[in-house]
Amino acid sequence: MTPATISPLAPKSFPAMPALDGVRIATAKAGIKYRDRTDLLAVMFAAGTTVAGVLTTSKCPSAPVELCRENLPGGRARILVVNAGNANAFTGKKGRHTTSVATRSAADALGCAQSEVFLSSTGVIGEPLDPSHFERHLSGMVESAAGDRWNDAAHAIMTTDTFPKMFTKSVALGDATVTINGIAKGAGMIAPDMATMLAYVATDAPLSAEVLQALLSMHVGETFNAVTVDSDTSTSDTLLAFATGTARARGAPPIDSPDDPRLEAFSAVFAECLRDLAIMIARDGEGARKLVRVEVTGAVSDASARRIAMSIANSPLVKTAVAGEDANWGRVVMAVGKAGEPADRDLLAIRFGDILVASEGERSEGYSEAETSAYMKRDEIVIGVDIGLGEGRFTAWTCDLTKEYVAINGDYRS
Amino acid sequence: MTPATISPLAPKSFPAMPALDGVRIATAKAGIKYRDRTDLLAVMFAAGTTVAGVLTTSKCPSAPVELCRENLPGGRARILVVNAGNANAFTGKKGRHTTSVATRSAADALGCAQSEVFLSSTGVIGEPLDPSHFERHLSGMVESAAGDRWNDAAHAIMTTDTFPKMFTKSVALGDATVTINGIAKGAGMIAPDMATMLAYVATDAPLSAEVLQALLSMHVGETFNAVTVDSDTSTSDTLLAFATGTARARGAPPIDSPDDPRLEAFSAVFAECLRDLAIMIARDGEGARKLVRVEVTGAVSDASARRIAMSIANSPLVKTAVAGEDANWGRVVMAVGKAGEPADRDLLAIRFGDILVASEGERSEGYSEAETSAYMKRDEIVIGVDIGLGEGRFTAWTCDLTKEYVAINGDYRS
Repeated sequence: MTPATISPLAPKSFPAMPALDGVRIATAKAGIKYRDRTDLLAVMFAAGTTVAGVLTTSKCPSAPVELCRENLPGGRARILVVNAGNANAFTGKKGRHTTSVATRSAADALGCAQSEVFLSSTGVIGEPLDPSHFERHLSGMVESAAGDRWNDAAHAIMTTDTFPKMFTKSVALGDATVTINGIAKGAGMIAPDMATMLAYVATDAPLSAEVLQALLSMHVGETFNAVTVDSDTSTSDTLLAFATGTARARGAPPIDSPDDPRLEAFSAVFAECLRDLAIMIARDGEGARKLVRVEVTGAVSDASARRIAMSIANSPLVKTAVAGEDANWGRVVMAVGKAGEPADRDLLAIRFGDILVASEGERSEGYSEAETSAYMKRDEIVIGVDIGLGEGRFTAWTCDLTKEYVAINGDYRS
Repeated sequence: MTPATISPLAPKSFPAMPALDGVRIATAKAGIKYRDRTDLLAVMFAAGTTVAGVLTTSKCPSAPVELCRENLPGGRARILVVNAGNANAFTGKKGRHTTSVATRSAADALGCAQSEVFLSSTGVIGEPLDPSHFERHLSGMVESAAGDRWNDAAHAIMTTDTFPKMFTKSVALGDATVTINGIAKGAGMIAPDMATMLAYVATDAPLSAEVLQALLSMHVGETFNAVTVDSDTSTSDTLLAFATGTARARGAPPIDSPDDPRLEAFSAVFAECLRDLAIMIARDGEGARKLVRVEVTGAVSDASARRIAMSIANSPLVKTAVAGEDANWGRVVMAVGKAGEPADRDLLAIRFGDILVASEGERSEGYSEAETSAYMKRDEIVIGVDIGLGEGRFTAWTCDLTKEYVAINGDYRS
């Protein structure tokens, strides 16, 4: 692996992540694959913490994804363990042995039920993951954990990420103020319809597991499932949300129904958290130098708009054109055409930013190559496509496809 | 555009293309986009020539594709006109004006009906194509055409192709010998489900248009529609087949039914022609340095096997790993998993060439990294995946994804 320089699209500053009541964090250098960096994360939650999640739809999921799928229906979490460097995917019986050792080690260290343990692994597929890493480190991590280590947590789960992805915001819930913290890792192998990479959101709000799950389901489609780096979908994509409920002691009302009107502001910030983390993942796509927002309007339905937007966002020819700062809107037409959704060539309108480049099936009258080329030099590009048939709309995010993507992925294992 | 060096996967030699009775060819330097090379092709057919075709399924097809779609039901062809450098796609009314001028010029020059004219254009999308190129050149081309110019024809239709794609073979039909000649151009924007790029097949066999169409339909799925370079689908993909029937004078029997048993040997060579041209297109994928054959077996159906094979063949992560000579079979598992087809991780077996790298959900016992790495250095790689569930099988062809692909496509218009 080539040491990566920080993405030019990285945020200019990172938030100071506050401790959350009921959440303690520890990281360790387990040496699973990387040397001289943390690669193991444990997050401990107060008793009574609820959990919900969205997992990869891959037909070949990793062993930790299967463990999460088993434990999610219980709705309770006490500890999350994440390692970087090895995905424990396609590792057969050995992989299941490793997750069971890790689960038992975590449950023993903290003194909780095995059903309250959640695991994620990210990295190379197909290499056995030595269970002794978990046996050796988890007790010490549980002992030494502290609340103010969200920044450490975001670093420990990185693989080819070039910057840590973090979000924090406070919001009113009833008469109390609660906080939402989130971290994520992304980079390659990122695409919709499973499209969750690894992301963890925690709040001190007292929300039932059902409410948490409803919030995830409501918002994941337009956030994590609207981001694609390379159309590839991981065996390990995992998005988990945890609610410690500790804000109840400060007067926050317990919320047991997703329809509770007191949830409105919280829901908006929760969505913002998912969206911000998801966009940070596109900003840190392997080799990315430009962030691309694809806005499709006028499709026959939102679902149709989504498929068209993803066809554009996943097109290698569109993405290489953006990398080359080439306003090649003809390739946008191609990607609309191949989506297989209702579209009438002669009603299409295409914009780069505010510049109308094509309408009614041909290049726009006032098209200026110089103006459009200048626009393409920006590091954030908006491709707007109006299908002209209906009211359906969807916005997708992606990044450009550069030689660096190929270089990074050509020798990832070595 | 960077001048391309010839693909390392190019055939070591090219066939000597024989003239076909009833086919005359002319090329010209029209200066449509390129300088100092031919970019305009006219192929004239004897009266009575039948035609069949498969056209892009893009919802935003080019103007020439629409013209072919109009004229194909007539089943008769006298002249094919192809230009390189400008696709005449997404050019609105101007585009339709250009095709109508080109059609009229061709019909006038040859003295045939406009319904017997077929057009293709390949190159940049969205730029108006000046109709005067056709007005200026077609009469002269019709006059100067000759039979022994198949090699010239294959060159004139190239865009980012690094070598001309040609096929010829003779085969018995009844007591006579007939010949099948084919040419194609490919490179980028190539993917299945329209996946035909530009390809033209001609024979002197006396086949009805219905028979020709049946042959195309029978064989296109496992040939042109089994090849992908980058998952992108052109607005202009066109595969046309022409039968002059001139071999009838030498005793070849007219074939009017696709079920005629005398067609068997011909059908096999026709399929070979389509397959060879299609694989040459994968060999000349933009930036390609390795040809990849993806063989899926054991799927629940052939259709399911096809979707899994295409998921692997289109995966940027699989294709960059091949470019990096990395036996990253974990990414093959990922691509199987994301295909959405029935698959049981613990029944999967994966081979690189003859080397079993994984079976029963984990790395194979006898796996040797050294042996597999040595295999990956070859310039033709076979990825074999057995799903272990049924009898469905499909073979797809693709190429690796290299930095050169990105370079070529980052500045195509400039």
